Amino acid sequence: MEPKKPFSSISRRALLSAAAALPALSGTPLSISAPTRAGDLPARGDPLPSWNDGATKQAIADFVRATTDQAGPNYVPPPERVATFDQDGTLWVEHPMYTQVVYCLEKIPAVAGEKPELKDVEPFKTVLSGDLEAVAKFTLPDFEKILAATLSGMTTEEFDAEVKEWIKAAHDRRWKRPYTELVYQPMLEAMRYLRGNGYKTYIVTGGGQDFVRVYADQVYGIPPEQVVGSAGGLKYGYRQDGKPFLTKEPKLLINDNNAGKAESIHMMIGRRPYAAFGNSTGDREMLEWTAAGDGARLKMLVLHDDAAREYAYGPAAGLPDTKVGTFTQELYDEATKNNWGVISMKNDWKRIFAFE
Amino acid sequence: MEPKKPFSSISRRALLSAAAALPALSGTPLSISAPTRAGDLPARGDPLPSWNDGATKQAIADFVRATTDQAGPNYVPPPERVATFDQDGTLWVEHPMYTQVVYCLEKIPAVAGEKPELKDVEPFKTVLSGDLEAVAKFTLPDFEKILAATLSGMTTEEFDAEVKEWIKAAHDRRWKRPYTELVYQPMLEAMRYLRGNGYKTYIVTGGGQDFVRVYADQVYGIPPEQVVGSAGGLKYGYRQDGKPFLTKEPKLLINDNNAGKAESIHMMIGRRPYAAFGNSTGDREMLEWTAAGDGARLKMLVLHDDAAREYAYGPAAGLPDTKVGTFTQELYDEATKNNWGVISMKNDWKRIFAFE
Repeated sequence: MEPKKPFSSISRRALLSAAAALPALSGTPLSISAPTRAGDLPARGDPLPSWNDGATKQAIADFVRATTDQAGPNYVPPPERVATFDQDGTLWVEHPMYTQVVYCLEKIPAVAGEKPELKDVEPFKTVLSGDLEAVAKFTLPDFEKILAATLSGMTTEEFDAEVKEWIKAAHDRRWKRPYTELVYQPMLEAMRYLRGNGYKTYIVTGGGQDFVRVYADQVYGIPPEQVVGSAGGLKYGYRQDGKPFLTKEPKLLINDNNAGKAESIHMMIGRRPYAAFGNSTGDREMLEWTAAGDGARLKMLVLHDDAAREYAYGPAAGLPDTKVGTFTQELYDEATKNNWGVISMKNDWKRIFAFE
Repeated sequence: MEPKKPFSSISRRALLSAAAALPALSGTPLSISAPTRAGDLPARGDPLPSWNDGATKQAIADFVRATTDQAGPNYVPPPERVATFDQDGTLWVEHPMYTQVVYCLEKIPAVAGEKPELKDVEPFKTVLSGDLEAVAKFTLPDFEKILAATLSGMTTEEFDAEVKEWIKAAHDRRWKRPYTELVYQPMLEAMRYLRGNGYKTYIVTGGGQDFVRVYADQVYGIPPEQVVGSAGGLKYGYRQDGKPFLTKEPKLLINDNNAGKAESIHMMIGRRPYAAFGNSTGDREMLEWTAAGDGARLKMLVLHDDAAREYAYGPAAGLPDTKVGTFTQELYDEATKNNWGVISMKNDWKRIFAFE
């Protein structure tokens, strides 16, 4: 949790394929849509209808049964029932680029409109040129400048309003749908199932918590206070009328990736999770931290092995690791050795999106 | 929220009167006792029985009525009902020294037992000598060394266990009771009343959140995830058996005082409070931040003006500001100008402690 230099948490790999993802900058405003607004009641009958029967689904059901059975040895009192979920690649599509990075790139024209001097300065000049191949060659410092310019300098209220507006209008290129529809229906069901059994569900994301909080309640049924993520510094100031405001500063206070996830869980939640879901090495320490507790603990990794319905990437999927996400062979081995569950999108999920 | 140098958030004034507070280092272990375990249901009849009738009590009741009346213009949906409470001087006694500082001083013998080289080094040598007059003359850097030595270097689990043990055994000098009994009964009632009306109650303390979380649930009915406080850095590591642990590091990540309170409320809660209770300039920005929201907002400051039953300090109490707490005349003027409520311990509270 030591402050790092701004936005250095974003791996270059995750940003590389910008060109493929940059959609047209215009869009018709839509209301935020989510496949199934995640309520807090389990569905009647099978609470996990989008999951195929098998070991993975069974492991989730067994865990819930074990930790809610008052007569059993693994019973967990309701206040201690905490389940944490990574977001990108675990709850919604992260490929070919994190949605928040798309947001940052698409905000550049507006930023340059307010600060015309940026128009002739790299990397802004290239973004504005629309030369997507050149954007794809950006270095990490280039991306840091873009993130700093679009995620800081404004008040928290202005930022919320901007994200809210954008997320309503923005569309993914492949499915031509709002990003908020690209959430995994089986994971919505798993969250709802856990909540229906007294679990408090948290997002623990490497993405910016201010960004995710804008839509998390509507899309995932997770309120702002249960969204933990990377966070920048804030500065308190007063308007002319004496009212205070908070300005988002261009420095990273919490880097919520890798060890940062275990650290922020301690800091923001103060309880060790009983269940944790991730999909990359950025989630390793969160799963290890969860696993290190007593009793029944559910540790799950989503494996992107379904090129037809979503994407396949990472060596564990039998593919070269050239795309986003880092479900490495090493992580796969750690998961196997420790009996963590591996969720095969291809085999474990009956459907991936609600719109299918 | 910019990292400051370690523990510089503790004002020297607050630490000055160490000599008066340092109790004997021995004590009989007791179970944690709280006057009334703060449940979540309002009492039958008057929900604030320890409050005298008057404008202050009425303001609390009016606020609750206004924000829970679905037909009224100031109705607040339950998920948005957030109330924040400072701890030291607002929920329990802070005089003559913050309880956490007493903890740090009393831990020095144990620390020196593990690190004998400290026995001949100041300020540890003086603490170990028992020369309380000399302790009272410590400078802020002296105290920083003491806080760093006792609040960092151990794992989070070790720290929890140490605080848990100490808080059971430690006694205040004046009342000869555990510190956990020196909580203000009227504030317990106010918290319970708010919770009974759908409010989520949070502690937002300049004290260490790891420290307060140990007893907050039992003493205030506030679970760990609703305790926001000052926080140090953490470091993730592995034991020989491969299990991870978090080490508390001697650097301040969140200074939860003054502007830091508004900033940490944004970061940790992500919602603007509808009600906020404090007692010093360290709480000013929390109350301003609360006040700046729309609709009905409750802003309250506890005034320590009861030398007989508790303490009187600060110029607003008509006394020279030579003791802990900084309810300055300037803060009093701001409160008056903005119609913030001032809770007079002497006039508004029928009783202060449950044991009276």
